[in-house]
Amino acid sequence: MNTLPLYRQLANHYLDAIRSGTLKTGERFPSIRLMMEKHAVSLSTAVQVCRELEGQGVLEARPRSGNYIRQPEPLPHPLPPAPQDVDAYVGIHQQVSSVLKASQRATIKVNFANPYCAAQLYPLKTLQDHMVKALRQNPQLLGTTAPTSGNLELRNILARRALTSKTHLNAEKIVITNGATEALNLALRAVTQPGDTVAVESPTFHGLLQILESLNLRVREVPATADYGINLFALEQLLRDPEPIRALIVMPNLQNPLGSIMPDSHKARLVQLCAEHATVLIEDDTYGDLVDTEQPLSTLKYWDHSDNLIYCASLNKTLAPGMRLGWISAGRWHDRVEMLKHSQSRGCEALSQLAVSAFMKTPSYERYLRRLRKILTQQRQQMRTAILRHFPQDTCVTEPRGGTLLWVELPPGFSSMRLFHEGLKVGIQILPGDIFSNGSGFGHYLRIACGAPFTPKIEEAVATLGQLLKNQA
Amino acid sequence: MNTLPLYRQLANHYLDAIRSGTLKTGERFPSIRLMMEKHAVSLSTAVQVCRELEGQGVLEARPRSGNYIRQPEPLPHPLPPAPQDVDAYVGIHQQVSSVLKASQRATIKVNFANPYCAAQLYPLKTLQDHMVKALRQNPQLLGTTAPTSGNLELRNILARRALTSKTHLNAEKIVITNGATEALNLALRAVTQPGDTVAVESPTFHGLLQILESLNLRVREVPATADYGINLFALEQLLRDPEPIRALIVMPNLQNPLGSIMPDSHKARLVQLCAEHATVLIEDDTYGDLVDTEQPLSTLKYWDHSDNLIYCASLNKTLAPGMRLGWISAGRWHDRVEMLKHSQSRGCEALSQLAVSAFMKTPSYERYLRRLRKILTQQRQQMRTAILRHFPQDTCVTEPRGGTLLWVELPPGFSSMRLFHEGLKVGIQILPGDIFSNGSGFGHYLRIACGAPFTPKIEEAVATLGQLLKNQA
Ligand SMILES: Cc1ncc(COP(=O)(O)O)c(C=O)c1O
Ligand SMILES: Cc1ncc(COP(=O)(O)O)c(C=O)c1O
Repeated sequence: MNTLPLYRQLANHYLDAIRSGTLKTGERFPSIRLMMEKHAVSLSTAVQVCRELEGQGVLEARPRSGNYIRQPEPLPHPLPPAPQDVDAYVGIHQQVSSVLKASQRATIKVNFANPYCAAQLYPLKTLQDHMVKALRQNPQLLGTTAPTSGNLELRNILARRALTSKTHLNAEKIVITNGATEALNLALRAVTQPGDTVAVESPTFHGLLQILESLNLRVREVPATADYGINLFALEQLLRDPEPIRALIVMPNLQNPLGSIMPDSHKARLVQLCAEHATVLIEDDTYGDLVDTEQPLSTLKYWDHSDNLIYCASLNKTLAPGMRLGWISAGRWHDRVEMLKHSQSRGCEALSQLAVSAFMKTPSYERYLRRLRKILTQQRQQMRTAILRHFPQDTCVTEPRGGTLLWVELPPGFSSMRLFHEGLKVGIQILPGDIFSNGSGFGHYLRIACGAPFTPKIEEAVATLGQLLKNQA
Repeated sequence: MNTLPLYRQLANHYLDAIRSGTLKTGERFPSIRLMMEKHAVSLSTAVQVCRELEGQGVLEARPRSGNYIRQPEPLPHPLPPAPQDVDAYVGIHQQVSSVLKASQRATIKVNFANPYCAAQLYPLKTLQDHMVKALRQNPQLLGTTAPTSGNLELRNILARRALTSKTHLNAEKIVITNGATEALNLALRAVTQPGDTVAVESPTFHGLLQILESLNLRVREVPATADYGINLFALEQLLRDPEPIRALIVMPNLQNPLGSIMPDSHKARLVQLCAEHATVLIEDDTYGDLVDTEQPLSTLKYWDHSDNLIYCASLNKTLAPGMRLGWISAGRWHDRVEMLKHSQSRGCEALSQLAVSAFMKTPSYERYLRRLRKILTQQRQQMRTAILRHFPQDTCVTEPRGGTLLWVELPPGFSSMRLFHEGLKVGIQILPGDIFSNGSGFGHYLRIACGAPFTPKIEEAVATLGQLLKNQA
């Protein structure tokens, strides 16, 4: 129990707040009246609190204006170092987490890690206008809870659009999520138990490896290549193993990081293989809409006739990263996914859904996507050329048919992890290949995103990376 | 593999979409041109698709206007019944999930289950204006990803406000979440492993029981009462058990459903007990700001001197349920929580955070809360009086010092689960006591929320419930 007198307790409370910066130098200190009211203390106690803090040199009384916070003296003995939580990322993929955290801490001038398009490429003005309109038309919106599964109109629009890629999603069985990230979490939580084994492509999206480890799932990797995506022979072998593979997560269209697109025949065979082995197929279609061609790619869902597939997608790459909208269509696991969504975060806030619905139901949406695809094609070409120009000889770069990502293979011996750390120091961020697998086969690969218009500054950054690599040699 | 000719495959695809209602009767069917473009089929295939569907009687050609969808004939043999997923809620608390789902399916006229305040009690117009302003001031907002931990200004405001309840949260170590729901998920995921045991109050918030089961955690219940909250003697006994209790989740202020407020001496002792037994304390302060009195209640966090506590809270009850904003302050588990948040759903969308910051930093926020508290006090009193008037003799009702919830004890023999189902049939929703515990001790309790102004319609609904109960006798 606290045995200090009340005024000392309160003074210490505020001292902590000042030392940690919650109350800042130069700011006004809470008034005597406020303290009396909020802490239910007497006038004399409140005054004593201020005296105590003045005595410690952290408050300065200014006549007729109140008390102001002064720079606190350094503590006589240095504070004990903040307890380092060495276990901070255990269970959330130590390697991926550390790389992401290092990036967060650095000052980034050129970001080649960001898979989104540059903000100005999104139809922001139009979406803003739709938001303002939706707010005006729904005056109670902010005061009411949204349905767990999301806005039904948006779900209808998503279901209709899917038809053009020959994909049949039932609007009633779509759940709107906080991005594909939440969709993937829900898909996995719906069909697995901790300790189950889940297969993924190799290399695969690093965020997925975090999700899997944080859900206590074991991971098996199936090789994938930039031409056709996942290797079906290797998959078939794995599925024949005695160890059951509970689920398989595949990005059939514009795989991250490879950019591969599976041929239709492979898609059909993949779906069949999974059904035969009672392995639930989880499709991540985050990038499908960014394919260069006008003709939509078929989804795995199209080939699924046995309700053995969960479809996940997102608007964060194609339309508005700031809205965090994704969705999941879980077929026979729908009820389970909906209740898991309720238990994990409740229904998503409604405003973004209304604004996006209003936009997506106009023809402007397709027009906008057409234009975006053209721009991305060009940006990828320019970046690819720059990499081949500045990087060491014999560097290989993928040539994906859409999206924002290039996968770069350096000649053996180069370390992309070293490049990552050296890049951070000069404000350039890339993603090292190592974080796209639990194995160690991608140490000389890296992912470079080209969602931003190609400028001299970007070319210069590519040249700097090239120079850093040449210093490695 | 699909061996049907291409036009039949496409026709079946669209037939499914029509039968399931994704394309609706009376609507225009996709044009020949669109089909050629999207499915990369020849003119003749596209025409054949339409012929096939006309032949099946689901398309009707209107001259110079295109094809329109007609009511499809019923299938010659009835469709096999949709596969019932009997396991839909296994692992997400079957009982709570079924009750919530039954409510979702019913048509509710009077909702006594909803713990939020009525929409018109929230400062919606002001928040809307702040939203519009924030959109205008941040033209790139919707096109950029938000930081994982949330908006720093909002975190600063939350940290400062906490000072008035003598609670020291470091803004740098706050993470903004999708409501307290996500905060509780993250807290539990940060400190437990599947299979661990976690203690809760009994009765406790039903959503918490879902979260615990869905995370594969075992639950022990500690009795709590409406006067002082959790029973510390019972807790001490439990903590002495050989089975380690990894974490304890407590709502010290305005417990859901009891409305209890722990005395400061109990709070201090509780914190100490948990520290002694290495049981992590998770504080859920969702309702604290709705206490009747001007003087803020102290939090458990205030009494925690050993960094053994995770603080969770929410703006969804106090300010804007439509924004889904909550937060978590996890002390030494901060880095872990931040990375789990990244892996579970990424940073929350930024617009709501900007609008709420703009409002919360003005004095209007405290003024608004003062007014809200007064209104709630009155609504609770009116509801309490009505229940005592209409319900069976010897019904007891709590008299909490804040918030929106009343906990009602019926005389033994009455069944609140039966009342729940009978109520749904007439459009009145309550929450039966059974879902507030994994045990069976609350079958004659129910929770009634009074966030809405008391009207004759509400009084009538209370009378109807009373009549339904009297029919039980
Ligand atoms: C393949 C893939 N899936 C999922 C995600 C996460 O998407 P969201 O931002 O919609 O959560 C990403 C984002 O980088 C991704 O690349
Ligand atoms: C005690 C308690 N904790 C948490 C929650 C969930 O809060 P939120 O809506 O912020 O997710 C609720 C909502 O009913 C609650 O009553």
